[in-house]
Amino acid sequence: MTALNFTHDPVRRSWIESANLPDADFPIQNLPFGAFERNGEARTGVAIGEHVVDLRALRDSGLVEAGSDAALACEAASGATLNRLMAMGPRYSGALRAALSELLKSDAPQRANVQRQAEALLPRIDEIALRLPCEVGDYSDFLTSLHHTERHGRYKGLADPLPPAFKSLPIAYHGRASSLRASGGEVRRPHGQYRDASGQIVFGPAPALDFELELAAWIGHGNAFTQPIPIDAAHEHIFGYSLLNDWSAKSIQWFEQVLGPFLGKSFHSSVSPWIVTAEALAPFRKAPVPRAQDDPPLMPHLRGAFDQQQGGLHLALYADLSTSRLRDAGAGPVRITRTHLDNLYWTFAQMVAHHTSNGCDLRTGDLLGSGTISGADDAARACITELTNAGKDPLRLPNGETRTALEDGDEIVLSARATKSGAVSIGFGECRGRIAPALAVAGRREEIAA
Amino acid sequence: MTALNFTHDPVRRSWIESANLPDADFPIQNLPFGAFERNGEARTGVAIGEHVVDLRALRDSGLVEAGSDAALACEAASGATLNRLMAMGPRYSGALRAALSELLKSDAPQRANVQRQAEALLPRIDEIALRLPCEVGDYSDFLTSLHHTERHGRYKGLADPLPPAFKSLPIAYHGRASSLRASGGEVRRPHGQYRDASGQIVFGPAPALDFELELAAWIGHGNAFTQPIPIDAAHEHIFGYSLLNDWSAKSIQWFEQVLGPFLGKSFHSSVSPWIVTAEALAPFRKAPVPRAQDDPPLMPHLRGAFDQQQGGLHLALYADLSTSRLRDAGAGPVRITRTHLDNLYWTFAQMVAHHTSNGCDLRTGDLLGSGTISGADDAARACITELTNAGKDPLRLPNGETRTALEDGDEIVLSARATKSGAVSIGFGECRGRIAPALAVAGRREEIAA
Repeated sequence: MTALNFTHDPVRRSWIESANLPDADFPIQNLPFGAFERNGEARTGVAIGEHVVDLRALRDSGLVEAGSDAALACEAASGATLNRLMAMGPRYSGALRAALSELLKSDAPQRANVQRQAEALLPRIDEIALRLPCEVGDYSDFLTSLHHTERHGRYKGLADPLPPAFKSLPIAYHGRASSLRASGGEVRRPHGQYRDASGQIVFGPAPALDFELELAAWIGHGNAFTQPIPIDAAHEHIFGYSLLNDWSAKSIQWFEQVLGPFLGKSFHSSVSPWIVTAEALAPFRKAPVPRAQDDPPLMPHLRGAFDQQQGGLHLALYADLSTSRLRDAGAGPVRITRTHLDNLYWTFAQMVAHHTSNGCDLRTGDLLGSGTISGADDAARACITELTNAGKDPLRLPNGETRTALEDGDEIVLSARATKSGAVSIGFGECRGRIAPALAVAGRREEIAA
Repeated sequence: MTALNFTHDPVRRSWIESANLPDADFPIQNLPFGAFERNGEARTGVAIGEHVVDLRALRDSGLVEAGSDAALACEAASGATLNRLMAMGPRYSGALRAALSELLKSDAPQRANVQRQAEALLPRIDEIALRLPCEVGDYSDFLTSLHHTERHGRYKGLADPLPPAFKSLPIAYHGRASSLRASGGEVRRPHGQYRDASGQIVFGPAPALDFELELAAWIGHGNAFTQPIPIDAAHEHIFGYSLLNDWSAKSIQWFEQVLGPFLGKSFHSSVSPWIVTAEALAPFRKAPVPRAQDDPPLMPHLRGAFDQQQGGLHLALYADLSTSRLRDAGAGPVRITRTHLDNLYWTFAQMVAHHTSNGCDLRTGDLLGSGTISGADDAARACITELTNAGKDPLRLPNGETRTALEDGDEIVLSARATKSGAVSIGFGECRGRIAPALAVAGRREEIAA
């Protein structure tokens, strides 16, 4: 496993000027993969500044050396999704990123040739409709922030707010793959059963909507059924990462939850559409925060030398909230969460090793969410439930509005930034969603005896 | 919605004699759909007696009227899975079953023509390798037997063994789609973390393996994202049913479970490979068991006239256990569970309506498990945990062996039979799996402080 990605030359610049802005999410050192619709066709691409390289157009351009690993990668990515490319492992996507870096760098010999084909090759991101980057077979969501878990345990009044298994294994549940959607657009408030303030069980538009700021790993090549992935190989199975907003209807969740979250989560989960590759993030690797002295020792199948040294990331993550009133007044969003990946107790490699330790097969395109990345600091609380101490201390916005949950019209934008001295900082793009009012269907609020 | 399927003529017989045996699972009145491998090719088919009609061969045979609904269905089913056919709704699969019934009936005018092509058209089931009938997007598993739920609540020592939500909504969790497998072959004992008898947390081959006897519904055409399926339309979205064995490693489950079952279930779930269509089961419809007088009234979105009258099935279900010692002695399996679909508190239509009530989209090929179908009677306990009163009363086999959990070499076969006077009884085929010893990988049993 290479610790530093050869395409990360911090001096390199692109002749696409928007990639060179200091706050650009997609400088030439990033080159994340995504899928989109263009002229009614589903395609895949690589982001550079405010543009995207259309990979089918690139395949047909003659710009990539025939028969090379990059050309094979380009061919695999010329369908509607990235699954085929992701399944090939990092060698091919890495070769394609390296070839693109050569074509897009300031002093690229091919620059004029690329520019001649720019209309086909390089649409602007704001002219395409981004889609989920791949077909997701299964989506699993973990619970790996100790702070998030402890706070929720305290809200429930538990004597020991941390579940006994928390420090022995990364707790998780199976999520719903069908309702994953790419960033953007409306998040429809769901109907559901819940207890109202009087304790009555009712069915209607669900109150207590919340966001959850997460990072999620995309599986590249998977494992054979019954064959666990050893911790030392786990990083190689992760193609890359996106932001995940695991929207939650807490009212539904509190009432329904016996075997874990179900309808309280499955109405919508938003994913940032660009997969920032594990390769692009390699320069930002760091050791995970060490376990406390009195924590139980790591079991062998969760303990890997590379993972212990480089299983974390220098990655800051943010959540911004805007409301209808703020937007109507022309005011920008309010930053409500500033957190860091260091707030995870478990690494993604540990999640992969644990997930497959029983022989469960991960498949290309599977998504593994980190769980809400809350930290110990008040500013690092990564959902409204925590930001308001379970509703006791409403969130106060600059315009006087208060929130204990998301209201219709509220919009959450997640973002993240990998930063390390000596490296060019890279971002993830945004994970955006705005709460839309519940549909009128099946919406009668009908009371039954509790 | 037609209450009785026009292809169910109880007098009709097939010229394929194995379909006419009194205990045949697949008489001409059944005609279930499945997928299989034949000469290295993935195909789909329809079972009749001990044979299967190869649907790609049927398409190419000239036996189905060109342009008819049956021909369109046949074309849709000529790929590797049934997804395309299932998505078309019951009209097309129904037309194909009707056309097959005409070709296979004793006095079929085309009989000689079919028989001439029998080698291509009608392989024996024991000469093909059955596969999962379709690609499964998401698999959800419910908890709808009151008896199963209450017993487990009592084992845990709960004051109120039934969760508060149980009678308000069908409780469920998201399952793992990747580890679903067609009936047959080995079920590898998983590794996992669990507490041993001394309370130590250990990692190793998981003890306390159990089976769970379930029925599962396959979704035909799905619903649009954010658009719930009304209870009155729910039955039309169910293409058919299979048996499901939700193998469980209770030792893993008890320790890991915070957000529901995860690795304790995701190592393997077995499905009987034939989809018995909702249409074939129509003659066996019955009213579900009425709710008790003092149960909370059904909410409107879970209350449908058709469902209240015909949402149940005259369906008996069985589990048989054999062990290595029994087989070595030439003894047959022991029937350990005799239960009935009446033991479900919720209907499948209610599961569909509930699942989509928050706007979650069900997709063609999604699988909805009923949960363990245990009844009040001791004989109707549908997992070993219940059969042994959580290990207190070991299961005693005729040869003197005892069980409190499944041991390596133990084999479970699930079966079911729909029966009603005036109708020809139909079955599901078997859902079989045999426990294989844990792999040696990652198998060190390593103790850490509890």
